[in-house]
Amino acid sequence: MMDVELNSWMLFRNAERSYRDVEIVTQLDAEERHRYTYASMADRVRRLISALDALKIPRDTAVGTLAWNSFEHLECYFGIPNSTRVIHTINSRLPAEDLAYIINDAGDQALFVAPTMLELVSKILPDLPEVKHVISFGKPAVAIPGLISYEELLASVDPFEGELDIPESSPFGMCYTSGTTGRPKGVLFTHRSTTLHSMAISGGPGIGISASDCVLPIVPMFHVNAWGLPFSAVSGGAKIAFSTPTFQPATVIRLIREEAVTKAAGVPTIWIAVLDELRRSGGDLGELAELICGGAQPPASLIRAYLEEYGVSMLQAWGLTESSPVATTTRLPHRLRNASIDEKVEFSSRAGKPVIGIDLALLDKEGRPAPRDGSTMADIYLRGPWVIDSYLHNADPDAFKVPGWFKTGDVGVVEPNGLLRLVDRSKDLIKSGGEWISSVSLESALMGHPKIIEAAVVAYSHDRWQERPLAVVVPFPGETVTLEEVRKFLESEGIPRWQLPDRVVFVPEIPRTSVGKFDKKLLRGQYGEEIN
Amino acid sequence: MMDVELNSWMLFRNAERSYRDVEIVTQLDAEERHRYTYASMADRVRRLISALDALKIPRDTAVGTLAWNSFEHLECYFGIPNSTRVIHTINSRLPAEDLAYIINDAGDQALFVAPTMLELVSKILPDLPEVKHVISFGKPAVAIPGLISYEELLASVDPFEGELDIPESSPFGMCYTSGTTGRPKGVLFTHRSTTLHSMAISGGPGIGISASDCVLPIVPMFHVNAWGLPFSAVSGGAKIAFSTPTFQPATVIRLIREEAVTKAAGVPTIWIAVLDELRRSGGDLGELAELICGGAQPPASLIRAYLEEYGVSMLQAWGLTESSPVATTTRLPHRLRNASIDEKVEFSSRAGKPVIGIDLALLDKEGRPAPRDGSTMADIYLRGPWVIDSYLHNADPDAFKVPGWFKTGDVGVVEPNGLLRLVDRSKDLIKSGGEWISSVSLESALMGHPKIIEAAVVAYSHDRWQERPLAVVVPFPGETVTLEEVRKFLESEGIPRWQLPDRVVFVPEIPRTSVGKFDKKLLRGQYGEEIN
Repeated sequence: MMDVELNSWMLFRNAERSYRDVEIVTQLDAEERHRYTYASMADRVRRLISALDALKIPRDTAVGTLAWNSFEHLECYFGIPNSTRVIHTINSRLPAEDLAYIINDAGDQALFVAPTMLELVSKILPDLPEVKHVISFGKPAVAIPGLISYEELLASVDPFEGELDIPESSPFGMCYTSGTTGRPKGVLFTHRSTTLHSMAISGGPGIGISASDCVLPIVPMFHVNAWGLPFSAVSGGAKIAFSTPTFQPATVIRLIREEAVTKAAGVPTIWIAVLDELRRSGGDLGELAELICGGAQPPASLIRAYLEEYGVSMLQAWGLTESSPVATTTRLPHRLRNASIDEKVEFSSRAGKPVIGIDLALLDKEGRPAPRDGSTMADIYLRGPWVIDSYLHNADPDAFKVPGWFKTGDVGVVEPNGLLRLVDRSKDLIKSGGEWISSVSLESALMGHPKIIEAAVVAYSHDRWQERPLAVVVPFPGETVTLEEVRKFLESEGIPRWQLPDRVVFVPEIPRTSVGKFDKKLLRGQYGEEIN
Repeated sequence: MMDVELNSWMLFRNAERSYRDVEIVTQLDAEERHRYTYASMADRVRRLISALDALKIPRDTAVGTLAWNSFEHLECYFGIPNSTRVIHTINSRLPAEDLAYIINDAGDQALFVAPTMLELVSKILPDLPEVKHVISFGKPAVAIPGLISYEELLASVDPFEGELDIPESSPFGMCYTSGTTGRPKGVLFTHRSTTLHSMAISGGPGIGISASDCVLPIVPMFHVNAWGLPFSAVSGGAKIAFSTPTFQPATVIRLIREEAVTKAAGVPTIWIAVLDELRRSGGDLGELAELICGGAQPPASLIRAYLEEYGVSMLQAWGLTESSPVATTTRLPHRLRNASIDEKVEFSSRAGKPVIGIDLALLDKEGRPAPRDGSTMADIYLRGPWVIDSYLHNADPDAFKVPGWFKTGDVGVVEPNGLLRLVDRSKDLIKSGGEWISSVSLESALMGHPKIIEAAVVAYSHDRWQERPLAVVVPFPGETVTLEEVRKFLESEGIPRWQLPDRVVFVPEIPRTSVGKFDKKLLRGQYGEEIN
C-alpha cells in the first residue's frame, strides 16, 4: 500500500478540488452574512501559507488565533498546519494572566486576532516577548504598533502552489485545558491525530458529516477546535454556517432555517436557550436533522423536548481536550429505531459508546478492570490515536500512571451492552456518609422542573455526613420554587431520599468557566462551608 | 499523542465490548435464518485465533477462504487477521486453473471452505502442495482426507485472551484481481490500509454506516471483501444481514423487510433483478434508506426507478480491488437536497467524488494533468493510504509508471465542481474514426429501454472507421426489439448519430466474468471480427 501521510493536506485536498462550489456562510451581525465558496477559501488558505513565509515565521513554530467562529478563522485552521506551522487556538475567555502564560508557553510567534479581541491583546502584548506579529481579521478598534491587516496581508502575496509533504507525526495544533486547578495544561495534536479524529467524527458512529450536510458549529472554534467539526466538514465537502460571536438564540434559529442547517453543535445551555426562544416565538428548526450536544450532560428533559416538540434528535458527544475531543457518542442503535420516546430519551441521556479508534476502560482505584454491570462506579480511562500520552512539559503525570491509558478524571458506569453513563467529574462527586452522590444526576433531574432554567449542585461540608448536596438554582423569571418543592420533585423523578439536596440557593445566573461550564470551584468557595 | 496501531483489533474491540447485543443474521436458504449476537461472534473469533495456533499455522502466513456470505466467513474476517495471519478471500468463480494458481501464489496454508465449495477444492487439492488443512463450515458433501469440521475445531479450544499488538504496516489480507489479461494479480492489504478504508467508508462521505443501520452486503465477501462493508459494520456496531449463496430476488426482498435492512449493497444486475421482482410482486423495501451500487455503472433508468417508485436513493461507489476498493461515492450535495428527481438522477449517475483520504488525478498520455472541464477525457489515477503501490511479485509495473500514482485503467472526465464521470475502461473504449465512443454510456442508455433487460456494447473491427459499436442485448421475455428501434431510442436519449451501434445481437443472457461483470473479452472474441 502507498505510504501516504495522514496530514492536513489530506483534509484540505478534496475540499479544494472536488467541492469548489460549496458555500461557507458567516453571520456577521443580526442582519448581515458573509458568504463565499470553498474555491475562494482554498485560494485564501494558499495565500495564507505564502504570507506566513513572507512574515518569516519559522516552520514548525506555533501561531496563535484569538478569534470567534468565522471564515477567516477557518482559513487559519488549514493555512497554518498546511504550512507546517502549529495552530494554537486560544480561549479568549481565560483570565488575562492565563492568556499570557499559555501564549508564552506555546511559543506563539504571531497572533491572528478578531477585531473585538484586539483590546485584550493590546493589554497583554508587553508580556508576550515571543510574539512578532499581530494580524487583525477586520478593522481594528485599537491602535497596536505594527498591526497587520489580514486582508492586506493575503492580497500582498501569491497563492502557494503545490503541496508540502508533512509527516503524520508532526505537530498540527495546540489547545490548553481550562485548568480547574493550577495553570492551564497544554495538549499537542499531531497531523495524524487530527486527521484520524476528523475521519472518526465524519463517520456514522461519530457525528456523521458529508456533503449532504450544512454544519453549524456554535461551539467556539477556540474550544477544542469546535470539537473538530470544521475539519470534518471541510474534508467531506459540507456546507458550513458560522454564527455571531455573541450568541443570540433568535439569530441562530434564523440562520438554521435560512441556510438549511442539518447538524448544529453546542453545549447544553445553548440548546436550553434555543428551546426557550422556539417556544416563545413559535418557530421551528427548518431542515435540522440532528442537534449535537457536548461539553456537559444535557438534561433528559431537554432531549425529550426537542424530540417531542420539534422531531429533532439530540446526539451527545463526550470527550475531553485530551481526546481531541470526541471519544463517545449516543448514536441510536438499530433496535431502538421504532422505540418509544421514553426509550430513545433514556438511551440518548447516557454518554454513549466509543467511536471507532477509541478504547474505553473502567478501572478501579488499583487500576484493575471494574465490572461493566451497569452499577459499579469507577474511573474512566481512554486510549486511542487521538488521546494524549502526556501534557506539554509533562504537566500532571498522575493522569498517565496506568501504562498506555489516560485517566480522564470522570467517574462512570458501563452497562453490560457497552453504554457509558457518566456519574460525575471525580472531584465534583459528593461523598455523603461513605456513599457517592452524582451532582450531574441531580442537576439533570432539577433542570427537568418546569420552573427551573438551570441548576448546579455542589457539596457543602457536613459535620455528620462529611458532605451533603446543595443546589444552586436559576428559576424562570417571575417564578419561585421552595426547597420542599424541589425535594418532592426530585423524589418523584426517582432520586433516593438520602441523595436529596438539604439546601437550595436561588440565583439569577450560575457562574461559568471560560469554556462555559458551571464553575463549581467558585460555587464550592461560595457555598461549600459547613453551616450546620 | 498515543502511539496506537491501526489494526484489525481496533475494528474488533468495540464490537466485542460495546455492541454485545447487536445481531448478525444469515439467511441459510429460502426459509431458515441463523442468528446470533456480536457477543457470540466475538467469542468464536477468539476461539478461531486459538484454533489457528493449535493447527500450527505459522503467524504472518496466508489462510484462504472459499465461502459465501455468512457468519462463519465474518468470523474469519476478524479471527485470521487478529491472529496476525493474512486472510486471502478467494473468488470461487475463477476457473479451476486460476484458483490453484492464486492459492499457491498467495501461499495459503489452510483453507476455510463452505460445504458447497468442497467439491471444487477436492478437485484442485492435489495441485496445492502448501495447503496443510481444509476446514469445512458445515456438513461436507464430499469426502476429503483429513477434513476438519469448523464447529468441532472451535469447540476444541479455549477463546484466545487479551490482544495481539500488530504493527499497522503488517499484512492483513489479500485479493486477486480477476485479470482480464494474463494471470490474476495479487493485491496485498495492510492492517493500516484496511482500518483507514473501513473508517472512510463508515464516514458520511463514504457509505455512512453506524449502529443505527442494518447492513446487507449482497456483494460477495470474496469480492474485494464485500467492498469493506463487514469491517465498517462490525467496527460501528451495525446489525448485519447476509443473504443466501444463490441470489433470489424474492428472498432478498423479504430479508430486507423482515430484518429492517437500512443499507444494502450489490452490483447493478442485482438491483435490476430486485426491481423487476418488486414490480412483479408489488412489495416494497421496508425501512431501506439507501441502495449501494458498485462494480459497474448502473443505468440512470435504474436509479430513477428506485427513487420514483420506492423513494430509495442509490449511492454509487466506484473503485477497484487495487483501491481496497472504495475511491469515490455519489453522496448527494446539500444544494441538491430539494432538487428535482431529474437533477438527483443526473448527479447519482456519475461516479462521484473522492472519499476522505483518496486523491484523484486526471492525467493525459504524457502523465500531465488534463483539464477538469467536464469534457476532456483522460486516464484516471489514484493515490491514497489504501491504494496499492505495487502488485504482488511486481506484476504489471506499467500501472505505477507515474511516480506516486496508480493508473486505474479507467478513462474519465472530471467536471469543474469535481464530479467524476467514468467514460469507460480504457480497453473497452471504441475508437471510431479517431474519436472515442464510450461503451458504458451506450449500455446505460440501452438499459433504459422499456423492452431491454440488459445490454453490453463492444467494438467490432471496421475497415473504414477502425472500430464500430455492436450492442449485445437481452430483451425482456416475449419482447422483440429491432436495430432501428434501438437506434431511434438511443438518439432520443441524446446519443450522437455517429455513436449509434451499427449492429445489434439479441441473446438470452450476457456472459459474465467471475466477479459478475460483462465479459467483454469473450464478447469481443465472439462478435468483434470485421464482417463488412
